[in-house]
Amino acid sequence: MQTETREVGGVTFARGYRAAAVNCGIRSRRNDLALLVSDGPASAAGLFTTNRVQAAPVKLCRERVARGVARAIVVNSGNANACTGSRGAADAERMAALAARAAGVAPEEVLVCSTGTIGIPLPIDRIEAGIAAAAAALRPDGGSMAAAAILTTDTAAKECAVEVDAGGVKARVGGMAKGAGMIDPCLATMLAFLTTDAKVRPAALQALLAEAADLSFNRITIDGDQSTNDTLLMLANGAAGGEALEPGGSGWEAFSGAVQSVCRSLALQIVRDGEGATKFVTVRVRGAVSRSDARRAAKAVANSLLCKTAWFGGDPNWGRILAAVGRSGAALDPDRVTIAFDGQAVVSGGCLADGASLAELARIYAQPEFVVEVGLGVGAAEDEAYTCDCSYDYVKINASYMT
Amino acid sequence: MQTETREVGGVTFARGYRAAAVNCGIRSRRNDLALLVSDGPASAAGLFTTNRVQAAPVKLCRERVARGVARAIVVNSGNANACTGSRGAADAERMAALAARAAGVAPEEVLVCSTGTIGIPLPIDRIEAGIAAAAAALRPDGGSMAAAAILTTDTAAKECAVEVDAGGVKARVGGMAKGAGMIDPCLATMLAFLTTDAKVRPAALQALLAEAADLSFNRITIDGDQSTNDTLLMLANGAAGGEALEPGGSGWEAFSGAVQSVCRSLALQIVRDGEGATKFVTVRVRGAVSRSDARRAAKAVANSLLCKTAWFGGDPNWGRILAAVGRSGAALDPDRVTIAFDGQAVVSGGCLADGASLAELARIYAQPEFVVEVGLGVGAAEDEAYTCDCSYDYVKINASYMT
Repeated sequence: MQTETREVGGVTFARGYRAAAVNCGIRSRRNDLALLVSDGPASAAGLFTTNRVQAAPVKLCRERVARGVARAIVVNSGNANACTGSRGAADAERMAALAARAAGVAPEEVLVCSTGTIGIPLPIDRIEAGIAAAAAALRPDGGSMAAAAILTTDTAAKECAVEVDAGGVKARVGGMAKGAGMIDPCLATMLAFLTTDAKVRPAALQALLAEAADLSFNRITIDGDQSTNDTLLMLANGAAGGEALEPGGSGWEAFSGAVQSVCRSLALQIVRDGEGATKFVTVRVRGAVSRSDARRAAKAVANSLLCKTAWFGGDPNWGRILAAVGRSGAALDPDRVTIAFDGQAVVSGGCLADGASLAELARIYAQPEFVVEVGLGVGAAEDEAYTCDCSYDYVKINASYMT
Repeated sequence: MQTETREVGGVTFARGYRAAAVNCGIRSRRNDLALLVSDGPASAAGLFTTNRVQAAPVKLCRERVARGVARAIVVNSGNANACTGSRGAADAERMAALAARAAGVAPEEVLVCSTGTIGIPLPIDRIEAGIAAAAAALRPDGGSMAAAAILTTDTAAKECAVEVDAGGVKARVGGMAKGAGMIDPCLATMLAFLTTDAKVRPAALQALLAEAADLSFNRITIDGDQSTNDTLLMLANGAAGGEALEPGGSGWEAFSGAVQSVCRSLALQIVRDGEGATKFVTVRVRGAVSRSDARRAAKAVANSLLCKTAWFGGDPNWGRILAAVGRSGAALDPDRVTIAFDGQAVVSGGCLADGASLAELARIYAQPEFVVEVGLGVGAAEDEAYTCDCSYDYVKINASYMT
C-alpha cells in the first residue's frame, strides 16, 4: 500500500509552520540566518554528534530537546560557534533568547544551530539584528529561503516533503538539510530539520527519528570526518488534527515510512552534493555475521581514500575494495568474498571472477552512479552505505576553507 | 653514550649479505625483481599486515618466519600476488623454490614478498627467468639496486644503515623499504627489510623488531588505507662474530637502539615520500590517559582528510584538528584541550589561545615540515604519528593506478 505522495516543499510544507531567512553579515553575499517557527507548541526530538568536542548550540539543543517540546529553531551559517568556550555558550543562549522574543515564544522553546568555521566567536550583534529581521519576515512558504540560508560549501539546497494518509489524517512531513563535507560517522556531519503537522508524543517522536536516522543519515559519508555540530531536529505540532499517532497504532506505519522517506531523501541529497563529488556510490554489503559488521565493512569501503580516488578516475581497482573490507574489522572469509559492480560479478571466491571484463567494469565506473556489492561469505546480515568519489575539487575546496 | 654511526648503505651494509635486482618484465622500464641472500644461516623475524585479506606471499612468510631462520628474500614489484587464490599460493611457493635453487639454499629458507596491483596472477615464467638472472648478479654492494627495484609509486629509494658498538662487536644494521600509498594502521602498509651481522637468537630478534616497529612503522600513515601485503622482515646472520646478543646483556641496548634508528629512518622516509606529499607533519599528543589513547588521537588527526587538505593548502584550520581528536575515541576534556603548532599556542582551554596570530600560524603551515601538538588534558601519556598532506597529486596518482 503506497499512500505517500511526494511533494515539492520543505520545512514549511507541513501546516502551522513559518520560516524566513536573511543576510545578517556573517557571510558576504548569501543569506546566513534562518528562523523556523511553529504556530503552536510542538513535540521535539533530536539527535546530535557523538564527537567529544561539541559546539555550544549542540549542548543547548541536547538539553532542550530532552524536555520534549519546542516551538522555534534559529540557525546561522558561516560560523559554527564551536570551541568558543563560555562566550560561545552565552552566545547560543542569547540567540535563543533573541529568537524567542522576536517570535513571541518562551526562550526554552527555541533550539539553536550553527554551522561554518570552528573557533571564531559569533558576531552576536549582527545576529541580533538578523533575528529581528527574520522574525518580521516569517512566511508559511518560507521553507526554501531557510533551506538556502543554512548551506555552507553545499552547491544546492536540500529539501523534501511528503504527504501521507496516517490513520485517516493527511499528515505532512517536510525537511531541509545541509551537508557537503565533514560527513561521517553516526549522524553524518550535517544539520537537518524535519517538521510534521502530525500529532506525536515526544518519546515516540524521538524513537522514530532515531530509527529513521539509522537508516539514512548514519549510512552516509563524504570524507570520514565528523563534525562538532551535527544536529538533526524534528518538530511535530499536531496542526493536521486528529489523535496522537502511537507506535503500533493506526497510521503509525504510514507516518513512520514518511519520516524515513524524508530522512533518506535528505541524506542522499547530501551525498550527491558532497564536496567535489562527481559520482554517487552505493556500497552494499551482504553475507555478514551481523548488521553492524555489514555497516562497518560498507563504511570502510565508503571512506577509503583509495577507493574514492579510483571512483573519481573511473579505475575499476577492485583490490582496493577488498583491502578496505579486510581492514574494516568485519568478519569475513577471504576465500568466499564476492564483489559485483551493478550486478556484474567482479570477484568470486576471493579472486577475479571468471569472465569478468576490465573494459565492462571500467564502463560501469564511468557512470555517475553505481552500486558496489560485497559479499563477506560468513552470514546473512546486510547493510549499505552511500558515498561519493574524491576529486581534485574536494582537495581544492578543503585546502582553503578558512583563510 | 652515542656509539652509533650513521652510514651510507642499505641491506648489504651488514657483512655477509649480497643482493641484486633485474627487470623481469612485470614493469616496462624499471627493475622489478630483487634478491637478497645471506652467506650463512640467519635468524629471521617478521611482522605482517593485520588485514583479514592477506596476499599469498604474506601467508608464506608468516609460516616460514615462525621457524626462526631464513637465508634469502625475493621480492617483486608491479604485482601484489594478492587475491589470486590457490594459483597465487602456488606462485609464491614457486618463487621461493626458484630463488632457493638459484641461490643454493633450501626452499624453506627463502622468504617472498610482492607489491603492486592486487588480483592479477603473477607472470611466473618471467619471474623464473628474472630470479636466475638476479642470482647470477648477486653482489656485496647490491643493496641500492635492490632498494630501487622494490618501489612502486615511490619517487625515491629508502635506505638506511648504521654501525654500532654492541658489547665490543662492531654490529651493522641496514635496511630498505617501499611505501608511498595504502599506508596505515599497524605496520603501515609497506615492505621493509632489515639485515644485521649481529648474532641474535630468533625470539629476541622478533621481540626487538616488534618493539622497533611499534615506535616507527606503526606510527606512520599516508591515507589510512591498509594493504594486503604489509611485510617487515629482518635477518641476523652473525657475520660480525662474537656471542649472541641477549636482551639485558652487554651491547643489547646499543644494538636495539640501532635497529630502532633504522626502522625510524625508513618509516619517516616513507612518509616524506607519501603519494603526492608536499609536507611532513608530526602529530604529537600529550596529556592522554594511556599511550594507546594518545596514538588513537594522533592517528585520527594524521588520517583526517580535512586536516590533510588544510595542510596542503596552508590553511591553519585548527578546528579540524579538534574535530578529529574529538571523534577519535580518545578520552579528553574539551575545556582543557590545547593545540600548538611548532610550539606556538593555538588553542588553550578548548578555545583560541590569547595572542594566537592567524598570520603566524599560516606561516608555520607554509613550511614543508612542522609539528602539531595536541594536549588532551586528562592524563600524562603521550605518543606521536607521522603523516603528510593530501594534495591534488595524491588524487591524480590514485585515480589511475590500475588502468
